[in-house]
Order: sequence, then C-alpha cells, then structure tokens
Amino acid sequence: MSIEVLPVEGLPVFHPGDDLAGEICKKIDLIDGDILCIASSVYSKSKGHIRTLDEVVPSEKAKEIAGMCGEDERFIQVVLDQTEEIVLEYPFVLSKMSSGHVGVRAGVDNSNVERGHVIILPPDPMAAAEEIMERVREISGKDIRVIITDTCGRSFRRGQTGVAIGWAGMDAINDFRGDHDLFGRVLEITEEAVVDEIAAFSNFLMGESNRGVPAVVFRNCPEWKGHNELYFEPECDITIKALRKIN
Amino acid sequence: MSIEVLPVEGLPVFHPGDDLAGEICKKIDLIDGDILCIASSVYSKSKGHIRTLDEVVPSEKAKEIAGMCGEDERFIQVVLDQTEEIVLEYPFVLSKMSSGHVGVRAGVDNSNVERGHVIILPPDPMAAAEEIMERVREISGKDIRVIITDTCGRSFRRGQTGVAIGWAGMDAINDFRGDHDLFGRVLEITEEAVVDEIAAFSNFLMGESNRGVPAVVFRNCPEWKGHNELYFEPECDITIKALRKIN
Repeated sequence: MSIEVLPVEGLPVFHPGDDLAGEICKKIDLIDGDILCIASSVYSKSKGHIRTLDEVVPSEKAKEIAGMCGEDERFIQVVLDQTEEIVLEYPFVLSKMSSGHVGVRAGVDNSNVERGHVIILPPDPMAAAEEIMERVREISGKDIRVIITDTCGRSFRRGQTGVAIGWAGMDAINDFRGDHDLFGRVLEITEEAVVDEIAAFSNFLMGESNRGVPAVVFRNCPEWKGHNELYFEPECDITIKALRKIN
Repeated sequence: MSIEVLPVEGLPVFHPGDDLAGEICKKIDLIDGDILCIASSVYSKSKGHIRTLDEVVPSEKAKEIAGMCGEDERFIQVVLDQTEEIVLEYPFVLSKMSSGHVGVRAGVDNSNVERGHVIILPPDPMAAAEEIMERVREISGKDIRVIITDTCGRSFRRGQTGVAIGWAGMDAINDFRGDHDLFGRVLEITEEAVVDEIAAFSNFLMGESNRGVPAVVFRNCPEWKGHNELYFEPECDITIKALRKIN
C-alpha cells in the first residue's frame, strides 16, 4: 500500500459565485475514494463569506475587547458575530462557534483577502463539505470524500496546524473499541481523530503564505469506521472549564 | 509535485537490543530526503525503555493519585517518574516532561506490550531521532530526516492524534516571518508546526491497534526553514496556567 498526496496546483484566486469544485475538477482528475481537503478560506471566498470592515459597527463589547487586545474594533465585532461563546477575551479572543469548533478570533482571517476585508469561516462547514462532495459527483461522476480545513493554534505546543472543521463521506473519529492490541488485550484508548490527522498534513502542503495551494488530494487512503462526535460535550472539556475560570 | 507516503509493513515485534533502523532498512529502500516517522513505542521497546510493574514501589503521592483516578498505583508511580511537572492530577494525570512535551499519563503505555509491563517514552526523544538518522546513514548511506511520534489527546477536540516528540534533519516549525500573502501583505500568523502535521498523518497510517505498522515514510516532501522551539515558554502557555489554577 502506498498513499499518494497531490497538491492541486494552479487554482485561480476565488471570488463570490465562483465554482470551487468545478475549478478543482479542471486541475485534477479525481477518482472514487479520493479525499479532497479544501482550505476553508477559499470555500468562504467562493461563497462570499467576507465582511467589509467599513460597514461594521462595533458594539461596546467589541470596543472593550479590542482595547484590551490592541485589535481593530470592527475586526473584533466580526469575530463576536461568529462566536457562540467567548472562552477567553484576553490576550486574544478564543471563540466557541455554533459548529463546536473552538478557534482564536473565531477563525476570522485578514490574510489572502483585499485590504479592508476579512474572511469568515463557513457558517455550516459540514454542509460545505457535503456540497463540494455532491458537486464533484455532479461534474465528474466520482464518489469522493471531502474535508474543510482551518489552521489553528493548540495548547502546550507552539505553531499552528491544520484541523478539520467540516467533513463528508467519512467519520471524523476512527473508533477502535473492541479492537485488540498485538498481545490480545482490548485497547483502552480507542478514539483517533482521523479527519484532523489528514487535515494536518494537507495544511503542510497548502502552506500559509502566497503559494496559493488551497486544495490537496489524498489517494488510496484506507477506510475506517467510527463516529462524528469530534467536539467534546461541554462538561467533558477540561481546558474550556479551566479557561472559563481565568477569564 | 506528488508526495508518496509509504507505511513500512512487515516489521517484527521489537525487543530490547533489536536494531530498529536496521529492520526498517530491510523492509524499505530509503532514499535521500525521505522523512521516516517512527512510533515512540517501538523505539522504546528496542531500547528497553520498559518497566515491570511488579518491581515498582509506589510512593504516597502515587497512591493518592491512583486512588482518585482509579488507576494502578504502580502504573502511576511510573508516570510520576517520567514527570517533571504534574499539570493536572485529576481526572487524569497530565504531565510535563523534561523534553517539554505535555501528555496524559506522561505517555506511559500499557498496550502492545506483555502484560505486567509498561512502555515509557524515550527519555531523550531528540537524541533518539538523531540516532536513527545516523544509523540509517551508516547502513544505507542515505541522508534521511526522522520524526519520533507519540499519540495524544488535545484540548477542545475529542480523539487522539499523532504529534512529534523528537525530530532530526529538519526544523520543527516552518517560520513564515517576512513572507507575504497573495495580496502582498506581510503575514501576521507566521508559525506552522510542520513536524506535528507530518506526525499526525503518519499516525493515521500506523493505527492504534494490532495492525503493527510502527513506521511510515514520506517521500518527496518539500523542505522548509524555521526553528525548533516547539514548546511554549512557561509564561506563554495559557492553558497550562489555567490548568494549574484548577489543580
């Protein structure tokens, strides 16, 4: 077995209304079973999930946080608009979004977009993945799997890595419950967040700067079974509980 | 550009004194530039980083924590022996190790090892990666890069993913400082933890159960430049600060 990982090169800069799946299919012949990872930023751009800062009226809360963090208060207002729960206000806003995803500044991004604009994450990233999967089937007749990625910091370790915020055609978690180890013992640790492991490596090939490779295809990956509960139930998330207390 | 990812199949179960790099070189013809990811557990087994629980005398602290967490007090003693700072005692021990790595139960593992034994992480995982790199050069004459991986839970998201705990022949972090985005703006977010992104995908191919694929080769990966400060300076780690307060 060998897995092939193919960055989709030569994609254009996307604008609202562009057919993202269509452009990808022009650049690569997808085959059944492929896993297509797409940076959430280009999905959002193709759907017009962009805000113009000049049109944003900051609330008192946004002004307060922006003052503490040294940020543009209109930018913070966009962040708050995407936030279901503010987990941390300072030294940076950490947001829990309605999707369950927790990210710094709610994933709002002012890079790779025209000055004065910011890109927001897809409001329903699961639906975004499903839509791309269906559109590829429509164009090419191929049954692929799709992951929408974001780039995030983490606890304990410096630097950002790619994570999955939406997925379709696969389970988020590979569940080993009932499996045995090499010595026949039932495994105690049973959940592997496979979508995040794939998203992470796709992010390495996308890069963060002007290389402009927002889509990566994984070919010949094994399949797995599990479940889609990628986010903790609120009472199980020890980090969120601890951060709430210091906020 | 296409990246090839090759699980190293057919490796034996390793025992103290076995030549891990030698066995890998028997199964795959490595070439210059390859990135070889190795599960820390097999490195530890080949080096005898294993403890026999019957020979462990638990301290009062180990008994106290084991009681709270419902664990074997000898197992907890082994965890404490590997721990530089206990970040959290309950509901599970979260350890900061001398390498800087933070992991549940200090990464001590009782799966894929004979009953009554536990595997500890390599005490110096950077030296472990360097050693494997040198041994491969000695055997094959090839200049490869090496990552030693562990499997860890994370904040905010369920499930475990692979991370890097040791690396050689590469920088941990790809540093984009000074790079520009597609619109010519200097990037604000500049650090990508590339070693963890590669370790994550290698872990997906290793699996957690009895598939017995403890090594994965990445071929034709791009190079990057950055630095090796993968772990936060103590005063910069907001999660650790918050967890200390609830402990």
